Amino acid sequence: MLNREPNKQDLLETYKRIRSYVHHTPIFSSRLINLMMECRIYFKCENFQKVGAFKFRGAAAAVLSIDRQTLMKGVATHSSGNHAAALSYAAGMKGAPAYIVMPRTAPQIKKDAVKEYRGRIIECEPTLQAREETLEEVIKETGATFIHPYDNYSVIAGQSSAAKEVFEEITDLDYMIAPVGGGGLLSGTCLSAKYFSPNTKVIGAEPKGADDAYKSIRDGVIRPSVNPKTICDGLLTQLSEKTFSIIQSNVHKIITVEEDSIIKAMRIIWERMKIIVEPSAATALAVVLENKKRFARKRIGIILSGGNVDLEKLPWVL
Amino acid sequence: MLNREPNKQDLLETYKRIRSYVHHTPIFSSRLINLMMECRIYFKCENFQKVGAFKFRGAAAAVLSIDRQTLMKGVATHSSGNHAAALSYAAGMKGAPAYIVMPRTAPQIKKDAVKEYRGRIIECEPTLQAREETLEEVIKETGATFIHPYDNYSVIAGQSSAAKEVFEEITDLDYMIAPVGGGGLLSGTCLSAKYFSPNTKVIGAEPKGADDAYKSIRDGVIRPSVNPKTICDGLLTQLSEKTFSIIQSNVHKIITVEEDSIIKAMRIIWERMKIIVEPSAATALAVVLENKKRFARKRIGIILSGGNVDLEKLPWVL
Repeated sequence: MLNREPNKQDLLETYKRIRSYVHHTPIFSSRLINLMMECRIYFKCENFQKVGAFKFRGAAAAVLSIDRQTLMKGVATHSSGNHAAALSYAAGMKGAPAYIVMPRTAPQIKKDAVKEYRGRIIECEPTLQAREETLEEVIKETGATFIHPYDNYSVIAGQSSAAKEVFEEITDLDYMIAPVGGGGLLSGTCLSAKYFSPNTKVIGAEPKGADDAYKSIRDGVIRPSVNPKTICDGLLTQLSEKTFSIIQSNVHKIITVEEDSIIKAMRIIWERMKIIVEPSAATALAVVLENKKRFARKRIGIILSGGNVDLEKLPWVL
Repeated sequence: MLNREPNKQDLLETYKRIRSYVHHTPIFSSRLINLMMECRIYFKCENFQKVGAFKFRGAAAAVLSIDRQTLMKGVATHSSGNHAAALSYAAGMKGAPAYIVMPRTAPQIKKDAVKEYRGRIIECEPTLQAREETLEEVIKETGATFIHPYDNYSVIAGQSSAAKEVFEEITDLDYMIAPVGGGGLLSGTCLSAKYFSPNTKVIGAEPKGADDAYKSIRDGVIRPSVNPKTICDGLLTQLSEKTFSIIQSNVHKIITVEEDSIIKAMRIIWERMKIIVEPSAATALAVVLENKKRFARKRIGIILSGGNVDLEKLPWVL
């Protein structure tokens, strides 16, 4: 696994390693959305990525960077969202076990997703302490490698590949916007821009109700995510040392958006593009929606981070 | 406009004429759906077509087959669904007016769709007689050309292009399945298979609650659609002379499916492929779902006819 901030060569090598495993997702445009927003938007459809989210890129990069003997002992994590499913799938494709520590109170839908990709769930009490202790135990017993969902340079290098594919296909982008939760996608996107499209400004999109990344960059120190309030269940976490450092040095701006704008943006994407994206993915378009003047006539890349959403409960249905 | 059943040359010329106007929509596959269905399915995503449905292909083919002077007088129709929006858009892109006769009781959402594409709505009383009389008046007054939503050889030739694009990209398909309402898409698909992939068997997918096409083919005579009961609002109409004749001579089978299977198939497509399709589009997958043995290990093309669905009312939410 990478033990330093990925440089250009690291990104290229990571991409070479994962490219036959990840979906080269399509880039969509919508004439009507462009008219509505008065700019030109290129949507990178990571909702079509394996397991339905960009997270598979990072998980694959991490798994493929581990030597075979070590890998066969397994990988482990304590995430319960898309990263858990992604890591299970990535490990499985190399025949390695993935140990997923989850609070026993986690929703059945999340457990099922992990099981579907053959992850091995280890349940624990629903406290942070129990999670960490259980994870430590699992690692001690199995010799599995811990793969943090974002505080991991190989994972970050993997996430960078989504933006890299955009830069290869679409030139002269003025802006690239990605949502920010723990910062894996945003830091990877920053590195991709730095090395492959230095004139493109990278913007992080964050819900106002979970604006710890915005505050962290403003204050120059990692601010914790305290009682975040947003429908973006993928953006509740806070920056880590590795992601904060990369984002701080490379991001143009972090822009926060209202919940209403996120729901509106999500609905525009569903209605106009006929694709399913989760609320987190819609934050990037919400940034354009709330700042139309700033982005007028610009060429903008947007990473639609994922499409895993509960189809029973759509946010616009009361 | 074509005044005979389109032959191979007609299909090729129609395609040449419309290809720069229509979206060459992508073909999607899903590893999980293939596993689930135990066959190999290629989904042609006409939900991504302009106006969100394959109907744009036929409308464009009709509009582009009219000489300029006549076209400038306009086109007219009495459909109020996807065809109305498609015709409005197709006429608009050549600078011609589209007159859409609609019952004044039509849902606002349908009126808005037509207005968005600059169609001119002429309201009438909500009876078949009023619709036909009003359409006749409009045509008399304006000199507009009537474009039937499917009983029109140019329209049928246009619809054939969706399957043609599949056959160009995916070879050796055992089956091609398309939903059948009025039969425009199915008859076009039959002609495409006949001329471009003669070993592919074409199957029409129809809701059991609106099985007039099934009965028409069984009985060898057009059966009317009487009180159809289905959530597939795109499949309520009955075959016309032109579509019936083509389908009768070329279709392998029409297979009817239960409403439950349609809803289940629709949800599978949404959840697994992260794309939005309307219930009509899901009938084709419902056919595979209900007949897994027949289709086991086969290579199957499916035309996802459209993605215009009311996002406030999802059929699986009670």
